[in-house]
Amino acid sequence: MEESLMLAIRAATAGDVPLLLRFFRELAEFERQPGAVIINQETLIADGFGAQPKFRGLIAEWDGQAIGYALFFGFYSSWKGSGIFLEDLFVREAFRGRGIGRALLSEVARIARQEGSFGIRWEVLDWNEPAIQFYKSLGAEFFDEWRQVLLEADALNRLADG
Amino acid sequence: MEESLMLAIRAATAGDVPLLLRFFRELAEFERQPGAVIINQETLIADGFGAQPKFRGLIAEWDGQAIGYALFFGFYSSWKGSGIFLEDLFVREAFRGRGIGRALLSEVARIARQEGSFGIRWEVLDWNEPAIQFYKSLGAEFFDEWRQVLLEADALNRLADG
Repeated sequence: MEESLMLAIRAATAGDVPLLLRFFRELAEFERQPGAVIINQETLIADGFGAQPKFRGLIAEWDGQAIGYALFFGFYSSWKGSGIFLEDLFVREAFRGRGIGRALLSEVARIARQEGSFGIRWEVLDWNEPAIQFYKSLGAEFFDEWRQVLLEADALNRLADG
Repeated sequence: MEESLMLAIRAATAGDVPLLLRFFRELAEFERQPGAVIINQETLIADGFGAQPKFRGLIAEWDGQAIGYALFFGFYSSWKGSGIFLEDLFVREAFRGRGIGRALLSEVARIARQEGSFGIRWEVLDWNEPAIQFYKSLGAEFFDEWRQVLLEADALNRLADG
């Protein structure tokens, strides 16, 4: 039976880094931020596949072809403890609607449960209705009172300087 | 001169866990979520102060009295690499307006720069105008297109089960 399965989910390895970079760029394009990916292969290999990985990845394959991925890492809630932060969940457009995103997320949920994480958190763009409906169908909660803040580059340096 | 300084920022230790728990509850109260803190001291000691800490904390002291804290951990952007996620930033009400929150955040910014993090990200409640104005004054960016999603408890188990 195993050979007839069209969908397989496997852990990403250092050999997947060129593929992951392509996925990141495709996701950035979908999120209307082309050019936002400034990370390079060397950094990804060092950060994700060394002695203390800063993230983990899953690759979804359909008939042996990589067509989606999930990228996640641990976060910490001071109220509830260890959780998993899902940074990216992506399936190539031609392969959507086949349950591949659900299978990736389901695997992340199994990892979360196995590791004693209380939950998985992530973000969704407010115009991405199919994704929002999908997450609602899973019983996910939305926290719309919260605004995202980022401090980087010159602003980070100014603050670090005092 | 050192003795005349009213404000000191120091790293949190395992001995601060009872204090941190009090702070977490005060912050939850401020965020209109009293009773949301279900974590306990044993978990916090194991998770924060063992061989592989899942978070780090800073304590702010005013005239030797602990009156605020910051709690943070590493996150990973697939576009930009390593960053710091600021989970909590809190100063007791009677001590606000003295630059203590800024001093805590400034120390986090120094740690971020020292560790090669591209930036610090965090969240703010949309009704917390003083905080929003403060973050804007630092040059922080707001990402209001993104909605927060959380999957936990029964919904997490259902997804993990397939």
